Amino acid sequence: MGKISNSPDMTLKEFFDRDRFAAMIGAELIEIRQGYARARMLVTSEHLNGAGQCQGGAIFTLADLAYAAAVNSHLTLTVAISTNITYVSNVSEGYIYAEATEVVNHRRVPFTEVRVTAEDGRLLAIFTSTGYRKQDVHIDADEPGPACQ
Amino acid sequence: MGKISNSPDMTLKEFFDRDRFAAMIGAELIEIRQGYARARMLVTSEHLNGAGQCQGGAIFTLADLAYAAAVNSHLTLTVAISTNITYVSNVSEGYIYAEATEVVNHRRVPFTEVRVTAEDGRLLAIFTSTGYRKQDVHIDADEPGPACQ
Amino acid sequence: MGKISNSPDMTLKEFFDRDRFAAMIGAELIEIRQGYARARMLVTSEHLNGAGQCQGGAIFTLADLAYAAAVNSHLTLTVAISTNITYVSNVSEGYIYAEATEVVNHRRVPFTEVRVTAEDGRLLAIFTSTGYRKQDVHIDADEPGPACQ
Amino acid sequence: MGKISNSPDMTLKEFFDRDRFAAMIGAELIEIRQGYARARMLVTSEHLNGAGQCQGGAIFTLADLAYAAAVNSHLTLTVAISTNITYVSNVSEGYIYAEATEVVNHRRVPFTEVRVTAEDGRLLAIFTSTGYRKQDVHIDADEPGPACQ
Repeated sequence: MGKISNSPDMTLKEFFDRDRFAAMIGAELIEIRQGYARARMLVTSEHLNGAGQCQGGAIFTLADLAYAAAVNSHLTLTVAISTNITYVSNVSEGYIYAEATEVVNHRRVPFTEVRVTAEDGRLLAIFTSTGYRKQDVHIDADEPGPACQ
Repeated sequence: MGKISNSPDMTLKEFFDRDRFAAMIGAELIEIRQGYARARMLVTSEHLNGAGQCQGGAIFTLADLAYAAAVNSHLTLTVAISTNITYVSNVSEGYIYAEATEVVNHRRVPFTEVRVTAEDGRLLAIFTSTGYRKQDVHIDADEPGPACQ
Repeated sequence: MGKISNSPDMTLKEFFDRDRFAAMIGAELIEIRQGYARARMLVTSEHLNGAGQCQGGAIFTLADLAYAAAVNSHLTLTVAISTNITYVSNVSEGYIYAEATEVVNHRRVPFTEVRVTAEDGRLLAIFTSTGYRKQDVHIDADEPGPACQ
Repeated sequence: MGKISNSPDMTLKEFFDRDRFAAMIGAELIEIRQGYARARMLVTSEHLNGAGQCQGGAIFTLADLAYAAAVNSHLTLTVAISTNITYVSNVSEGYIYAEATEVVNHRRVPFTEVRVTAEDGRLLAIFTSTGYRKQDVHIDADEPGPACQ
């Protein structure tokens, strides 16, 4: 059985806090539970595309961070295989939130939905992803309890 | 008819060079032609996730930059509506490339494919996207010629 | 303004009942409301693939019928552009149901989710689709009321 | 190791010819090779939807048949997990063809593309699918040779 960390006392949140790309763009996890996670990001001028809107890749990355936390909350390393993102509306400032819910907690190929919303609750994007659980690689972190924010 | 820029002499590449998010993560366009674009990014430690691999969002953003340039090469503002990305293999260093080819140049809903590869040609991800052309908004830039690298 | 039917008294359900392919495979609409529809199909030996399971195309077609009814419930002709289906579990007999809910009733590019379930409520597939509203073509049928089953 | 057939002399084409749903709608395999397959269907009035066009589910099923043959051509049972179909243009009569090409022959999660075209070569739909190989279930059929039409 492989391990992807060797810090036995690391929490799952600490594991994801090592995601340097997410940190660079300002995406942060604010909640992880079994099959669920929530992340947020403050949209600044650094996140805008040539048309002055939050870049699709920034929204995708925020959603992907919440996705990875939710799908890995069972501590079996799971990677995204095929992901779909549909953009619904634009945003150019303020906090945006990604809320990931595992729709199907399949042993091998779980299916997870993430909704990205603006501060006022407006839907910005819907992200769905089929993952693949690498059953011989476990994440060496404390399992999240029912509400380990 | 709307315009999304008011610099009449701006090239399409200059338009995309205003994408601050792409610039922050080091993604850059290296070629734009009618219905085609190519971008690259040097993967550094800043792009890695908690497992030490290039983060999916970084790969997505690079692909999205190439996509946006290819799909907007006809100078009618086109936004991605629904995008699918399938990850094939990992990368943790070196240049990676995204090559966007418009498969269907539809008047309203074009379909475009982007392949992301490593320096050695290995396929990393396939990105396909259905766009929506906002026919009353034109990009005010010089049209790319047959090979305006 | 175009019309896609010339039977002024036809209901939306009657319009979809003209779908000969859906009829051939035994898929039938059982409920249409604004932004919502439900269809069912009795899985028989005619629907099975070489491995003895209900063929993916049969499940897709049932979902697509519910989708088309929900997305066209506003009487502006809307076609599916990009559809994703994720298969969760198999079925080989009994009624299966598709329930379509419009997630985003966008003026041009609505986003709709369909869940296909077995008689016992087990999730079989999740179908999501981005449509395109042809705003100059209206469906000439009576609009469904709040519960026109 | 499981088997999904017990007819040792069955060819892969014979295995797929047992797909009763594909047979009902008139879809037939015309070529199978390693990582490739082609199927066709004669569009008749039976395949039309309420608007008089070939129903999306019929096009999907044809594509899915070609997909299944291509992805199973290595004789390890592989099922579609997540499939995307993008419709490009309509058809209401004549033969239509689905050509499946395995883009990534991954050990566990292969990625395959299918293009559906009309007799005149016009692109009707693009179908991409991520599969899942059930490595302990083998198809008990003769492997296709380099050109076993």
